[in-house]
Amino acid sequence: MIYFDHAATSFPKPERVYQAVQECMRKYGANPGRSGHRLSLKAGREIYRVREKVSELFHIDNPLQVVFTCNATESLNLGLKGILKPGDHVITTSMEHNSVLRPLKRLESLGVDCTIVSCNSEGMLDCKEIEKAIRKNTKLIATTHASNVTGTILPIEKIGEIAKRRQILFLVDAAQTAGVYDIDVKKMHIDLLAVPGHKSLMGPQGIGILYIREGIDLMHMKEGGTGSQSELLMQPEICPDRYESGTPNTPGIVGLGAGIEFILEEGLDKIRKHEMYLLEVMLSELKKIKGVQIYGPKDPQKQAAVISINIGSEDSTKISYILDKDFDIAVRSGLHCAPMAHQTIGTFGQGTVRFSFGYFTTEEEVYAGIHALKQICKQM
Amino acid sequence: MIYFDHAATSFPKPERVYQAVQECMRKYGANPGRSGHRLSLKAGREIYRVREKVSELFHIDNPLQVVFTCNATESLNLGLKGILKPGDHVITTSMEHNSVLRPLKRLESLGVDCTIVSCNSEGMLDCKEIEKAIRKNTKLIATTHASNVTGTILPIEKIGEIAKRRQILFLVDAAQTAGVYDIDVKKMHIDLLAVPGHKSLMGPQGIGILYIREGIDLMHMKEGGTGSQSELLMQPEICPDRYESGTPNTPGIVGLGAGIEFILEEGLDKIRKHEMYLLEVMLSELKKIKGVQIYGPKDPQKQAAVISINIGSEDSTKISYILDKDFDIAVRSGLHCAPMAHQTIGTFGQGTVRFSFGYFTTEEEVYAGIHALKQICKQM
Repeated sequence: MIYFDHAATSFPKPERVYQAVQECMRKYGANPGRSGHRLSLKAGREIYRVREKVSELFHIDNPLQVVFTCNATESLNLGLKGILKPGDHVITTSMEHNSVLRPLKRLESLGVDCTIVSCNSEGMLDCKEIEKAIRKNTKLIATTHASNVTGTILPIEKIGEIAKRRQILFLVDAAQTAGVYDIDVKKMHIDLLAVPGHKSLMGPQGIGILYIREGIDLMHMKEGGTGSQSELLMQPEICPDRYESGTPNTPGIVGLGAGIEFILEEGLDKIRKHEMYLLEVMLSELKKIKGVQIYGPKDPQKQAAVISINIGSEDSTKISYILDKDFDIAVRSGLHCAPMAHQTIGTFGQGTVRFSFGYFTTEEEVYAGIHALKQICKQM
Repeated sequence: MIYFDHAATSFPKPERVYQAVQECMRKYGANPGRSGHRLSLKAGREIYRVREKVSELFHIDNPLQVVFTCNATESLNLGLKGILKPGDHVITTSMEHNSVLRPLKRLESLGVDCTIVSCNSEGMLDCKEIEKAIRKNTKLIATTHASNVTGTILPIEKIGEIAKRRQILFLVDAAQTAGVYDIDVKKMHIDLLAVPGHKSLMGPQGIGILYIREGIDLMHMKEGGTGSQSELLMQPEICPDRYESGTPNTPGIVGLGAGIEFILEEGLDKIRKHEMYLLEVMLSELKKIKGVQIYGPKDPQKQAAVISINIGSEDSTKISYILDKDFDIAVRSGLHCAPMAHQTIGTFGQGTVRFSFGYFTTEEEVYAGIHALKQICKQM
């Protein structure tokens, strides 16, 4: 099978990720931070090492500000709900995933004001619109780094500058960029960074990250045993314990560590260049096929390795079904959990057929995808 | 190493658990329920199969009422916070883990009334105390099935009858019993059952379960992409989607499925009998050692495979350190994230040294533990 669904989850993972998960489960499968015996201490140390690797990747000074969650959706819920209180105002964009929009809609029902800034039909954001939307009670700006529908990259460095200048907190959803693009939480003035472990960070499913800038008083979402300050019936205040109740996903965290290690060794530049090259090939070939409508910027400089297309007015699900059945090619169709992004680019009814690449995607696979689309177009 | 820390997490796991996790990651590591291609459908089907296995184990009619969380702590937070609103009254016991008590303390600060019924010095609960605590506004009774400190089993079948008769919802924390004791949600009138995947269910860390009885309107805690009803900006109402936002821990769930399969094949009776036999050996041998104080019922019929002890007035952490360092034996000391249980049994200052067994613990290991304790007592 040719796998073009990396925006949903990367597959396969680097060999060392599988091995790290196995080694953890088989050799030190104890409960970290709970007991004082060697196996538990070893598990705890390995988790701390992954906090360090995450910190290295995102230029975070203090690894204890790296919180592990079960996925980026939990990271986003924690970040948004931990900051926003009734009466606060939040600014977001029309290209967001439901993992941002649904928590914000919930918060709206509890008295939080929400402004959704519209992006253009390619998913591009005009920073002036963000600035215009700022009110006296604006507490947070929350944006994606790149759209999961069109790949469109949002100017988070500029938004970060605006947020800093206007003393507003800035949350970034890096679901489609972490592990490919250089994200520097300090340079970009990012206060909260939400990241999935299983996409371009190459880790297993079941792990997410929320970086919380030191000094931010973020309300926790869950309470429980933390292995620390057990005598207290109140949740400890220290980070990351405050946000990590209950037994962690140790094999998942360790697997994520192996994924990040792989990325640090290969280098972000090499990974990004490869993905940009694949984008270039795919975009230029797609432009030659009559009947194919391409969405988004159509420019490798302006988008992550995600391309959404349609063939005429054909239902996107039908095309993905044919790709799977007749060509053994895996893509994702429909709305990609981002209905407003589809309204923005004009595909809310039809959805789109989404091709998304990873570091292990090859040029040959991209050409095979192009060939399949040509065949399908001929038959339509 | 001799591992007596099964109450924290079971280790090792059955071989098939390791293999299931690997197979999932290597062969069908796609995102379940997100895309329509074969790999994604396969992942989705495997997750559904695990819901079926969970249902078989706990006598649940509809597998769609089985919700996967990241750990039992999240299950408990979801169950408690999803039910209790300001003005409601909840009854719990003094033997609870912080995963129950800390969320309840948080809810208390938001206007929920909470009664903590005291257990006796062996951790035993008198059901009449539960009945006496019921008020007009009692919405929920939340109890553990067995204490993680003393192993004391609480009479959940009787509490379930009271709850049913008085039309109060009943939540059970089965962290120390699921996979060893027969839990029948229908017979026991359990409305909400919270279970960790990584303890006696033999699954990997990173997975928990919340069973929600059909018809209960439980408020969700997180919103996000569910792969269903993507066009909606509100969280879908259907179960389990309402409670499972974002990419699930597919390898973890599949590993849990392999663990439950193992349990169903071995049979709960065989597993329980083995653990009860180990308890019997350990308890009868412990009683012979002068200077050892045993807590809890001291009766295999009345406790799960957890034994808490102290040696004179020695700090429990010191004893566990010696066991680890000099005898290569892993136990857990301190308060075990259950401070009120220690107040109940009178060990809040000293903590206890906790021995906890699993299905793979052998009689020889138990004797080695006894031998080590004898040596330590001699030297004290």
